[in-house]
Amino acid sequence: MAAVASPTFFLTRSTQKPTPTQKPLIPKTPTTTLLSLSSPKPTLSLRSSSTSPTKHTSIRCCSATPAALRRRPEYIPNRISDSNYIRIFDTTLRDGEQSPGASMTPKQKLEIARQLARLGVDIMEAGFPAASKADLEAVKSIAMEVGNAVDEDGYVPVICGLSRCNKADIDAAWEAVKYAKRPRIHTFIATSEIHMKHKLNKNREEVIEIARSMVSYARSLGCQDVEFSPEDAGRSDREFLYQILGEVIKAGATTLNIPDTVGYTVPHEFGHLIADIKANTPGIENVIISTHCQNDLGLSTANTVAGACAGARQLEVTINGIGERAGNASLEEVVMTLKCRGQSLGGLYTGIRTEHIVKASKMVAEYSGLLVQPHKAIVGANAFKHESGIHQHGMLKHKGTYEIMSPEDIGLQRVDESGLVLGKLRSVCDNLAVSICSSCSGRHALQKRLEQLGYQFEGKELDDIFWRFKSVAEKKKHVLDEDLEALVVDELFQPDSVWSLGDLQVTCGTLGLSTATVKLIGADGKEHVACSVGTGPVDSAYKAVDLIVKVPVTLLEYSMSAVTEGIDAIATTRVLIRAEAGVTSTHSSGETVNRTFSGSGSEMDIVVSSIRAYISALNKLLGYKNKPNQRVSPGNSHVSAASTSVAAASS
Amino acid sequence: MAAVASPTFFLTRSTQKPTPTQKPLIPKTPTTTLLSLSSPKPTLSLRSSSTSPTKHTSIRCCSATPAALRRRPEYIPNRISDSNYIRIFDTTLRDGEQSPGASMTPKQKLEIARQLARLGVDIMEAGFPAASKADLEAVKSIAMEVGNAVDEDGYVPVICGLSRCNKADIDAAWEAVKYAKRPRIHTFIATSEIHMKHKLNKNREEVIEIARSMVSYARSLGCQDVEFSPEDAGRSDREFLYQILGEVIKAGATTLNIPDTVGYTVPHEFGHLIADIKANTPGIENVIISTHCQNDLGLSTANTVAGACAGARQLEVTINGIGERAGNASLEEVVMTLKCRGQSLGGLYTGIRTEHIVKASKMVAEYSGLLVQPHKAIVGANAFKHESGIHQHGMLKHKGTYEIMSPEDIGLQRVDESGLVLGKLRSVCDNLAVSICSSCSGRHALQKRLEQLGYQFEGKELDDIFWRFKSVAEKKKHVLDEDLEALVVDELFQPDSVWSLGDLQVTCGTLGLSTATVKLIGADGKEHVACSVGTGPVDSAYKAVDLIVKVPVTLLEYSMSAVTEGIDAIATTRVLIRAEAGVTSTHSSGETVNRTFSGSGSEMDIVVSSIRAYISALNKLLGYKNKPNQRVSPGNSHVSAASTSVAAASS
Repeated sequence: MAAVASPTFFLTRSTQKPTPTQKPLIPKTPTTTLLSLSSPKPTLSLRSSSTSPTKHTSIRCCSATPAALRRRPEYIPNRISDSNYIRIFDTTLRDGEQSPGASMTPKQKLEIARQLARLGVDIMEAGFPAASKADLEAVKSIAMEVGNAVDEDGYVPVICGLSRCNKADIDAAWEAVKYAKRPRIHTFIATSEIHMKHKLNKNREEVIEIARSMVSYARSLGCQDVEFSPEDAGRSDREFLYQILGEVIKAGATTLNIPDTVGYTVPHEFGHLIADIKANTPGIENVIISTHCQNDLGLSTANTVAGACAGARQLEVTINGIGERAGNASLEEVVMTLKCRGQSLGGLYTGIRTEHIVKASKMVAEYSGLLVQPHKAIVGANAFKHESGIHQHGMLKHKGTYEIMSPEDIGLQRVDESGLVLGKLRSVCDNLAVSICSSCSGRHALQKRLEQLGYQFEGKELDDIFWRFKSVAEKKKHVLDEDLEALVVDELFQPDSVWSLGDLQVTCGTLGLSTATVKLIGADGKEHVACSVGTGPVDSAYKAVDLIVKVPVTLLEYSMSAVTEGIDAIATTRVLIRAEAGVTSTHSSGETVNRTFSGSGSEMDIVVSSIRAYISALNKLLGYKNKPNQRVSPGNSHVSAASTSVAAASS
Repeated sequence: MAAVASPTFFLTRSTQKPTPTQKPLIPKTPTTTLLSLSSPKPTLSLRSSSTSPTKHTSIRCCSATPAALRRRPEYIPNRISDSNYIRIFDTTLRDGEQSPGASMTPKQKLEIARQLARLGVDIMEAGFPAASKADLEAVKSIAMEVGNAVDEDGYVPVICGLSRCNKADIDAAWEAVKYAKRPRIHTFIATSEIHMKHKLNKNREEVIEIARSMVSYARSLGCQDVEFSPEDAGRSDREFLYQILGEVIKAGATTLNIPDTVGYTVPHEFGHLIADIKANTPGIENVIISTHCQNDLGLSTANTVAGACAGARQLEVTINGIGERAGNASLEEVVMTLKCRGQSLGGLYTGIRTEHIVKASKMVAEYSGLLVQPHKAIVGANAFKHESGIHQHGMLKHKGTYEIMSPEDIGLQRVDESGLVLGKLRSVCDNLAVSICSSCSGRHALQKRLEQLGYQFEGKELDDIFWRFKSVAEKKKHVLDEDLEALVVDELFQPDSVWSLGDLQVTCGTLGLSTATVKLIGADGKEHVACSVGTGPVDSAYKAVDLIVKVPVTLLEYSMSAVTEGIDAIATTRVLIRAEAGVTSTHSSGETVNRTFSGSGSEMDIVVSSIRAYISALNKLLGYKNKPNQRVSPGNSHVSAASTSVAAASS
């Protein structure tokens, strides 16, 4: 059999900017044939060739025109001047926070919103304001601050609030987002037969009428930017979908989001769905189509990219891919796929400043308690590690042999040719540690280093972090930025303190009964001391805390990890608790849900780290109840000191 | 604009078995047009309809014909009698073990191999026998035991060994796998310009000659089943690829594996690559095409599935998707995608018994130390959690509203309608705990429960586990199977013991100097005692261990997590260490690499758990050196007791 020439595609390095005249990938005319959706026709960025070996190295992550150099098109809710520009809609603060145990404090949400703005997300969904007064306030504070921080390029993120299709929710969403320069209301209703029948108890006509009138209501409030989602679109009847989408367009919707709610579609199916909607919905040419893909089969990134190839120009994602069940499409995977491979996807590009990805990832992992696995694409600890010889060898000779993007692209710093190191940071922080230990003028140096890391502190906050850093610097061989950041997170992004740790003393081991003595300081400044025995140091210490705090909780998860290498590293503990009495909140469906609370603590002593995490979670729980110092009825406590507890004394 | 009817696809439940007469999805004739690769034409399992709402519920994970009922086609190396059958090639033990720090003991590898056989993988790559004598022996023992355990259906996994394209490697691979009923040699060489130039320093002709002669050599040894991989195929010149593949087919290769080594392709590209190879390689119709996709952009599952749609009939995967950098395509995602959606992918199916997935996932996470994130698809802790109200509501009314597969499909047990519980397991183990605490006849009950969990123990091993279980049962409110399994892992899958923990006593807290006293028992039975102070309980305890063991190591990673809910849970600690002196091994590239060693320990006391993990890693390191009790020259120790250490005493 003779080998027959077949086209081979190589990316070519080109500085040519995609022009607005480029055709969209999917024809607008209705069609009943299967489209080659995920095989877009080669555009100017693709070149057919059967022999072009020397071009291979150009696959490294270098967009034809670096994203930073491309101008982000001016924001107009229902259209984008450059047909290749993809809007990134981040829903870490709404859909991500919906993950079990991922609830964050308003301070943490604001900090993440600031980081999302540094990343340059086009739209951030800041929350579900109807959930509670606290949720509304959190979205409002983001709208007021982050939603008005216009940068020199004119960029400011759209701040979006979620609402069900009812007036109260829409009022709450508008009240929260209207302070932003670019506010958006996102409203949704289920459109699949199974959801309409089993969840809504409504027929098609009723659902259309609700959707139409609520989009119209949102516009009537003065909101020029309204997004509508037909929930479970992936399993909705197509004709019905075209109909309801056409109606909400007429009612004033500017973005139509198509969720694959149960994460069951495969890429070519999802691409077809987007293409069909684009081809068959009346008025679709006047709005933006959006994707929202769950990850139940591990296909969310591919589905999202297939949606973009089929005509979607807004992609809904979360940092680290967090979200319910298997989560959502992850911002870093989708963005880096478009950055590294956008040219073979028809020239698509985003406005994301990818060098802020690592910090965003770490922050979200820390605050949500949802850590990423070492082999997570882009942001996992091993993602840029080349340990095995074969790869180190290749790396040393030529970076391009195994690396398709560079660590610097996502904000990791590299020191030598073959891997990642912290050398530079190490020396800065080490010098700082030496200067702090050897002089009294260290406060200013610390403040300066913190500023370089993106944190601004002064006054008492700076004092607190200074003393803890000094204590670490006195004990630790090398002080790294990671150590400093762990302390910053531990010290400053804690919930408003109800209880704080005074002192702790523990004896444990294989020989005797573990015993812990704890001194806590209440909001009133009074000291409380208790001791307890237990099966280990954490068990006994937590039981002693319970004797003082008297809020019965269940410990759902407990984990700890060292922040850096070395036996003298700082350990960060993360816990997840649930109140026995049941602390509930309202979900976007109107359901009442049991809230869980995460807490974290960092210290060189793992027992102290553990107790800090527990107190942090308890404070979050108490803060959520809006009743500081509240002593919940004792009741049956899962963790209350058992019959083995020997004493409890208060100040 | 009038809505125009467009086809909508619903899966229909059918018991019709795919017939061998079904056409392959990709035409065999060469073509220069873009194929609709990832949009296979609807087959009998797809039905076009614009209104068929009542069929929606049938998307739940139920293959038309349950995989268990389909007969696995008889194994013939270079062909498959059913054109829809997909072979699963698991490389957890080779590519997975290549991950930083994932090295496992021979005992752990054998245990994983047994579990892979329970899963029913068609082929398992058991290792790289040329790496070291220990690696060869590990593969050999798997070949001898697992490779000969034919079940009642005639199933027995193919045992495969990796080798570079040289005689010594191929000899080692054959020596290791030849004891299996179905042995396979897998050999590879790089074919991309960048790799040939920078890594091999060879031209095209030389590379073809090496590949051809080495495949031929493998066959000459008597191996009927030879797999060949052109490394970095994704970036290799197409014509050259067809040529070298054609040559190795002539030389006797039976499977051609196409790796996307740097994980940079997008699904439609990878599908094209497979289709092009299928269309243009001389003799390709006589061999099986395989995929091997890295996950650098988060697209490995989609790429693998695209490869299958384009004609690949072997898919290389790892449990949990572990592997270097961002890992490989994950077995569970690929298999469940084919199980849940195989019908819309042309009727493709595998022979995997998915109910063994959860156990395999836990075992690999445990032994490799590479944990999965909570939102990992299929096997993450949250993958089947429905916490938020909207979903709970839907779930209660109708499981199909949010679930596309059931937890039971992958081996998780469900107790109530809305979530996962361990109730049944709990009661079994609780009763066991009660009976063990209240009588002396518990040993038999424990043995029986262990058997139900898949572990077989007797004699001293059973005794050891019995006493540790009893000690937990006396302290813990509810004893769960997870607790039992943590103890089993801690007790039995440790490396051959050099040092074991006698006793430990620790005092720590915020007030004073953390102090630990440690008693270790050496291989000679002698007791050694040392004490040290440190910055925390773990620091001081590890320093005391160092005073006795005297092997300078660096602690690279340290993490801990609770095995179950509740403050009285067992905590499992995982550590990763590297010898300062440098313990090296040979990689498949011929490079010398620094080995790292992981260790784990489980105990209710976190400090005891931590020290068990450290001793386990040290024993693994000492065992690897094949010099038990070796005292490496003290030198500069990163973790040696600092000037603060106060004493060291020996027996």
